[in-house]
Amino acid sequence: MPFNHYSIIESTLREGEQFSTATFTTGQKLEIAGMLDQFGVEMLEMTSPSASPQSEADIRAVVNAGLRARILTHIRCNLEDARRALDTGVQGLDVVIGTSPQLIQHSHGKSIRQIIDLAAEVMGYIRGQRPDIILRFSTEDTFRSREADLLRVYLAIADLGLVNRLGVADTVGVATPTQVAAMVHQLVRLTHLDIEFHGHNDSGCAIANACAALEAGATHIDTTILGIGERNGITPLGGLIARLYTLDRTYVSKYNLRLLPALDQLIADTCEIGIPFSNYITGASAFIHKAGIHAKAVLADPGTYEILRPEDFGLNREIAIGHRLTGWNAIRDRAETLGLSLPDDTIREVTRTIKKRADDAPLSLAAIDDLLREAAGAVQEQPV
Amino acid sequence: MPFNHYSIIESTLREGEQFSTATFTTGQKLEIAGMLDQFGVEMLEMTSPSASPQSEADIRAVVNAGLRARILTHIRCNLEDARRALDTGVQGLDVVIGTSPQLIQHSHGKSIRQIIDLAAEVMGYIRGQRPDIILRFSTEDTFRSREADLLRVYLAIADLGLVNRLGVADTVGVATPTQVAAMVHQLVRLTHLDIEFHGHNDSGCAIANACAALEAGATHIDTTILGIGERNGITPLGGLIARLYTLDRTYVSKYNLRLLPALDQLIADTCEIGIPFSNYITGASAFIHKAGIHAKAVLADPGTYEILRPEDFGLNREIAIGHRLTGWNAIRDRAETLGLSLPDDTIREVTRTIKKRADDAPLSLAAIDDLLREAAGAVQEQPV
Repeated sequence: MPFNHYSIIESTLREGEQFSTATFTTGQKLEIAGMLDQFGVEMLEMTSPSASPQSEADIRAVVNAGLRARILTHIRCNLEDARRALDTGVQGLDVVIGTSPQLIQHSHGKSIRQIIDLAAEVMGYIRGQRPDIILRFSTEDTFRSREADLLRVYLAIADLGLVNRLGVADTVGVATPTQVAAMVHQLVRLTHLDIEFHGHNDSGCAIANACAALEAGATHIDTTILGIGERNGITPLGGLIARLYTLDRTYVSKYNLRLLPALDQLIADTCEIGIPFSNYITGASAFIHKAGIHAKAVLADPGTYEILRPEDFGLNREIAIGHRLTGWNAIRDRAETLGLSLPDDTIREVTRTIKKRADDAPLSLAAIDDLLREAAGAVQEQPV
Repeated sequence: MPFNHYSIIESTLREGEQFSTATFTTGQKLEIAGMLDQFGVEMLEMTSPSASPQSEADIRAVVNAGLRARILTHIRCNLEDARRALDTGVQGLDVVIGTSPQLIQHSHGKSIRQIIDLAAEVMGYIRGQRPDIILRFSTEDTFRSREADLLRVYLAIADLGLVNRLGVADTVGVATPTQVAAMVHQLVRLTHLDIEFHGHNDSGCAIANACAALEAGATHIDTTILGIGERNGITPLGGLIARLYTLDRTYVSKYNLRLLPALDQLIADTCEIGIPFSNYITGASAFIHKAGIHAKAVLADPGTYEILRPEDFGLNREIAIGHRLTGWNAIRDRAETLGLSLPDDTIREVTRTIKKRADDAPLSLAAIDDLLREAAGAVQEQPV
């Protein structure tokens, strides 16, 4: 049951801050952290204190806010970043270093042996300073790294017995679910450590990859609200929830799902972006049913075309009926709502009229109601 | 090499029309079809002529437009819909009938045996009328259907020797890549027919599922521009392109990729929706690099943090440098762009100043340029 023992590492205050329009004030960070804590995420990851003076002060502010969620910060693999991070009082450190040929060449220039030595030094220092801290070591750009390099690094670090968790990061958004599952499964089998997955969404697999990681035994998934992050972002919190909910609602029953719309709206407002029309759960059209055959079945039982129940998120469904794809079942349902009892033939005729008129432009509900009331009048006036 | 022999069935003019705000005029349909044809999609699927009088007329208009793409229409599995569809002169018919317990109960009420008999009658009629038509039979809500039911239906239809293609449809957006691959692989193995995948995105796997289908031997993938469709939609054209491109650029070299931004914009304008900030390739932030370590590496080689080359889509990258997460490499690059040759220590000091000021609000490029020019003046004024 891999889906019963996972934690969300909510990284809106780290990865999310790397989104183009994200510049959070201290007050905004506290508000976001507080609402995520109410939602129930297990961990909150924040920008490194080495990024800027305010970044450092904000970690202290969130650490002191007394949240249930553990507060982590995400740092480069060096002693200076580690020292500053430890000084903030965070409960966990997420340490990262690039291992792909691309990042080795253009980011830090170190060999695999040097990476191992440096990581061993930094991990040893951190654990020496804080025996109780939650310590994660991650490679960066895992899925463009050589597998032999990855195993040398991960197995050397695991062997030290200093870290709680290994991180697997699809930094450029290139991995497939099959690749993620294979890598996670291998690390679970070889190290028995907790495994974290961090996945970008450049090629649209960030949610599927997170799910594949959990299926393969990963214990932690990184998310951000609305998926904001570098470029087009990472696994969105709401998207991960939608995915796990559709597998089994109990997988997400530990979270306060009704807060999801407010969380998405908070980030949309703060970053001055719209919630995508196609967003999971909270997109404007997520629970709108339009085609006639869909409307008919949803009126009989919403589960026919809904795998997520809007009411579980404090939302409502909508059945659109004033367009050319409408069907007579939806129109009959509307007549019943109006208290009009019309013969099927009349309903079918009104539906034909609506379809024909809607070929020019969709009809408002008021216009449909007028047509139905008109038809009801005509029916009553007929000689018995 | 499953990715070298696939076709896109572009369904913006069918599934897309089921999106809440989509109401295409004849002119708009012709414009969308024309641009998709220039892009190079192999097939265009249109709304059934039974939907409304204009729907029928529009099929004829697109059929008569002389496009390279084959024109298909999507119909319910009954003789009346088939007759009307054949009469329009389309080159292909996509026939669908629900097979899940939910749809059997609330949509059509037929038993599996009745479904097989009806489908056999309809397929026989269509093939008799038009021996050359491209004929597809699909179940609806495939992934909530009983596997035994699916196999009975698919194998009976395949055995008739009348259809070119079988369709697999994740109608409610619940399938995982593993499930899609298993179903497609089974049908390929048992029937040797072309296999089409249609996937909704309610739980965020529409792109991963389409890719899994192709890996398992599917030959046709349904897309819509921006993914518009019922609820939050299906596999987006641009998202599928991004996914296949990142696996191997040659998989999508048959398409005119530089038309993608115009296609996405056309649908955004027509449906009065924004292109999601997180959209694949054409989202506002898709090629923006922000964090200092990202900016440094991208300046050295864009491939370090870019798995898609913006120039292949006629787009540009942007490196954001006026925020608290900026790094001195990006600032040095900016100084060089301005023709200023500054010592590293000075660049680092300017970077510290930018980070500190950006803790309040991001700096404009002009403000950064002023700081750099000021620093350059100070350097020159120093005694030799």
